[in-house]
Amino acid sequence: MNIGFIGLGSMGNGLARNLMRAGHNVVVYNRTREKAQALERDGARAVATPAEAAQNADAVFTMLADDNAVADVTFGAKGFLPALGKTGIHISCSTISIAFARKLAAEHSKAGSGYISAPVFGRPEAAAAAKLLVVTAGPSPLVERAKPLLSAIGRETYVAGPEPWQANLFKLCGNFMIASMCETFGEAFATLRKAGTDHTKFLEVMIELFGSPVYKNYGSTIADGRFEPAGFALKLGLKDIRLGLEAAGEFNSPMPFASLLRDHFWSAMAHGQEELDWSSVSLVAARAAGLNP
Amino acid sequence: MNIGFIGLGSMGNGLARNLMRAGHNVVVYNRTREKAQALERDGARAVATPAEAAQNADAVFTMLADDNAVADVTFGAKGFLPALGKTGIHISCSTISIAFARKLAAEHSKAGSGYISAPVFGRPEAAAAAKLLVVTAGPSPLVERAKPLLSAIGRETYVAGPEPWQANLFKLCGNFMIASMCETFGEAFATLRKAGTDHTKFLEVMIELFGSPVYKNYGSTIADGRFEPAGFALKLGLKDIRLGLEAAGEFNSPMPFASLLRDHFWSAMAHGQEELDWSSVSLVAARAAGLNP
Amino acid sequence: MNIGFIGLGSMGNGLARNLMRAGHNVVVYNRTREKAQALERDGARAVATPAEAAQNADAVFTMLADDNAVADVTFGAKGFLPALGKTGIHISCSTISIAFARKLAAEHSKAGSGYISAPVFGRPEAAAAAKLLVVTAGPSPLVERAKPLLSAIGRETYVAGPEPWQANLFKLCGNFMIASMCETFGEAFATLRKAGTDHTKFLEVMIELFGSPVYKNYGSTIADGRFEPAGFALKLGLKDIRLGLEAAGEFNSPMPFASLLRDHFWSAMAHGQEELDWSSVSLVAARAAGLNP
Amino acid sequence: MNIGFIGLGSMGNGLARNLMRAGHNVVVYNRTREKAQALERDGARAVATPAEAAQNADAVFTMLADDNAVADVTFGAKGFLPALGKTGIHISCSTISIAFARKLAAEHSKAGSGYISAPVFGRPEAAAAAKLLVVTAGPSPLVERAKPLLSAIGRETYVAGPEPWQANLFKLCGNFMIASMCETFGEAFATLRKAGTDHTKFLEVMIELFGSPVYKNYGSTIADGRFEPAGFALKLGLKDIRLGLEAAGEFNSPMPFASLLRDHFWSAMAHGQEELDWSSVSLVAARAAGLNP
Repeated sequence: MNIGFIGLGSMGNGLARNLMRAGHNVVVYNRTREKAQALERDGARAVATPAEAAQNADAVFTMLADDNAVADVTFGAKGFLPALGKTGIHISCSTISIAFARKLAAEHSKAGSGYISAPVFGRPEAAAAAKLLVVTAGPSPLVERAKPLLSAIGRETYVAGPEPWQANLFKLCGNFMIASMCETFGEAFATLRKAGTDHTKFLEVMIELFGSPVYKNYGSTIADGRFEPAGFALKLGLKDIRLGLEAAGEFNSPMPFASLLRDHFWSAMAHGQEELDWSSVSLVAARAAGLNP
Repeated sequence: MNIGFIGLGSMGNGLARNLMRAGHNVVVYNRTREKAQALERDGARAVATPAEAAQNADAVFTMLADDNAVADVTFGAKGFLPALGKTGIHISCSTISIAFARKLAAEHSKAGSGYISAPVFGRPEAAAAAKLLVVTAGPSPLVERAKPLLSAIGRETYVAGPEPWQANLFKLCGNFMIASMCETFGEAFATLRKAGTDHTKFLEVMIELFGSPVYKNYGSTIADGRFEPAGFALKLGLKDIRLGLEAAGEFNSPMPFASLLRDHFWSAMAHGQEELDWSSVSLVAARAAGLNP
Repeated sequence: MNIGFIGLGSMGNGLARNLMRAGHNVVVYNRTREKAQALERDGARAVATPAEAAQNADAVFTMLADDNAVADVTFGAKGFLPALGKTGIHISCSTISIAFARKLAAEHSKAGSGYISAPVFGRPEAAAAAKLLVVTAGPSPLVERAKPLLSAIGRETYVAGPEPWQANLFKLCGNFMIASMCETFGEAFATLRKAGTDHTKFLEVMIELFGSPVYKNYGSTIADGRFEPAGFALKLGLKDIRLGLEAAGEFNSPMPFASLLRDHFWSAMAHGQEELDWSSVSLVAARAAGLNP
Repeated sequence: MNIGFIGLGSMGNGLARNLMRAGHNVVVYNRTREKAQALERDGARAVATPAEAAQNADAVFTMLADDNAVADVTFGAKGFLPALGKTGIHISCSTISIAFARKLAAEHSKAGSGYISAPVFGRPEAAAAAKLLVVTAGPSPLVERAKPLLSAIGRETYVAGPEPWQANLFKLCGNFMIASMCETFGEAFATLRKAGTDHTKFLEVMIELFGSPVYKNYGSTIADGRFEPAGFALKLGLKDIRLGLEAAGEFNSPMPFASLLRDHFWSAMAHGQEELDWSSVSLVAARAAGLNP
């Protein structure tokens, strides 16, 4: 297929390469052009505007930081929406708000093109290795058409429902679960450290108890205080908790752990952690306990 | 070795049997005697008082509900402390407060006998299958002597530190982490359900994402609302969160997730859930969101 | 002076009348015209569009439900901004977001007209009696010009700072303090009721202890469960807590009580309380304790 | 009447003097005897043991730091219980746990003497000026007999119910309300300060809005950061929040604001604030926001 790919950060780069590897024709666009050109060596074609990425494309992927960035490449002066034909699908992998996912669906529908959400779980390494978990949602025919592409970027694809925003809600709830786990490590470690007890030994027990690579990776990162380089920047983690709470608010569904987490992310921001890994939210508990992080 | 075993609930029963299977001589005591007699068929000897269980014992295990129950069999009128000789060790597997663990250590020390804490992670099935995670703590020589016994009841033994209460702190922190996970499922499921989105599909993603049997088991229990029979009663879960917070308080270490959890356990108690599985704490989030549990 | 007044709800009605009583020429606009016409008997002139309310006006007051409503009358098709001359001031009494207050200030500045925020504290009765507390903010010369008008509607005027949004932040923080007080009554009353102890007697002590009419009024409302008719609707209270948290987020300032409050407002919404008085947020604590509200 | 008075701290000292002023015969005991002797100049008689204070006493007041201190003077080796005759009443003004109040009632009943709780609201200055609010509870005949004494120490006496612990529950809930108010000031001030806005001006508005001396006093203390000398030490405030939560737990009544407060008191303790005024719990919010307290 002919694919446009917009957004070549550490995640998008892996996705685009895996689509190429799967034999698709990939046209890439990135705001800082160097990142696009780096993919030309491997067979992609770099273009100068989002609109050009959508020319003759069967599908356009977007993998960008937030609602505004996606709005810009879609609806902006050189946005790709008008260029995406009636048979084109916008596959949005970014973690965006459910409100904006609805807007994207509506605008594409008006324009006669297709839209599905397909956010992913996994770190840049998983993106590079095509081992992401892909959660998609949208009208069945579109999802079916997109499935071969989604299979090329992940190890498993889940369908959250018929409305695109449902996939985004899955993503936001999933990130809430990971962030909560980081907070629990933060609180437990703080108490153990104040008790003069070996928190790394406790981590060993938890790794065995939960038997989860996620607990192992994040738990070790937190135990060792290795928050740089960030696998996922804290400021982006804050965005996701905020969007999760906005969604909860739309449905009047209290999420007190998420609310507390947001306070802790704010505190982390106030202490200059915006570019550290989001698991450094655990430092807030340490600081509250009077520990030297 | 000659072993006294006190407390034959769903956990203790499995432990005692595994000690017998490992070739040890086991004398059992339980308040309701039938449970003790049931083990006689398999070679145990049932006695009528805690004190008798300690006669000639190299070690006495206790596996009971709380501080008071352990105090009763240890220091009570027919308690075993005086009967435990200078070479005897009290191996306390119960989830007790760190303050009481300290008291046990002090009293045994005064009496000339040994004391170590050895709480376990795992459900009754894991106890029966000798697949528990055992966390022990205490003076090295005692821990070394106890290790063969601990190996007989678990798949792995961890040493938390030289002071017995440190093992209890590990256990309390570990249970805090499990309870927090239940709450996160509760909040996420509530939001998804209010959004008219399939929370069991979300669970599938989380099972794959975390890759953890603990997430799978608890997540499924919560998604399906199967809280009876209880693997671990909510009222006991509340006790553990309370003890965890008491420990945190001793060290002035804030644990806001634990604090919120306790409020939710209280709310669950107020709604008659004391005998349901502790993962039913997740119903509190559902109720707050106006969902019919 | 010539005054335009837009928004004649239970608060705006009292404000407009007090401006008339102070001898000003008042032209009124309200979406449902009947409310505007009701003031004609007392000497106001009712007009059909926001724009007409600004013709020859020295100042235009707005007292509306939220950002959108203010945006509509200001920037909408028949909005008053173009009609407000270089010497006209927009005095915004609505509880709006600090972000929108900044936008209003910027747009008025571009258009050459003036803008100040002047939110008020007090219930409709206080508005009718000109006993509101008025908090204003904006450039000094504008504030000075507006002061006689503000004196006509309140018993005291406070200047929060040189930037209009600062007054809105005061208002949001103040409402947070009132809502928190309601929650504390809710939690204390729930515990006392569950203890079989007379919570109205406790209220008596608190009334005397705090010596505050606010504690007396809200405490009595909550103790008696008299949430209808609403002095201030819960759905509007939720809006204010939400805006307060958005402001806190802008400055990365954790407000855990406010976060918890928002969860409780959501729970109240989920239980159908949107039109009850906002002090009914206290029912959430009662419900969590298993009490029949 | 003949009065024994035990505990001459900053509160007890004022109480004892006011009882003397009202014409009663007062025998005083204090652990550090100097404080007792200081009252001899004004007509009290200082004794060397709690027991002596109860000789021929119609009533014995206790005003001490906590459960343990009261237990010591009541049940200890030189405790006054045996010396208190059948017609004697123990009037306990200390802020103690409701569980211990029940124990005191039971033990006095066994011994044939009377017991009522009579905790007070007010700072040392109010104690000196006999302007405390007194909350009492217990069997009616005892309360009636005690009333003239309680009138001598406060400006108003409230009866919480027929069981002594009910007065203690009032006291704990009341202190929860005051501490919550301090936290709300802490959070609002932090947000205002981070917004570069004058929090003392905001305080002015709140003082006028709430019209409460309690808001004025605490709000000013917090705004100015004047936490020394402590009117009420933070470590004692923590004790009261802890006892309030223990009571809430007994009735399974969630108090999420109280839970959060306790975490903040722990954090304050961890930052060395135990001897500062308890309103310094507000510093926790400032610190979380990255402000320099």
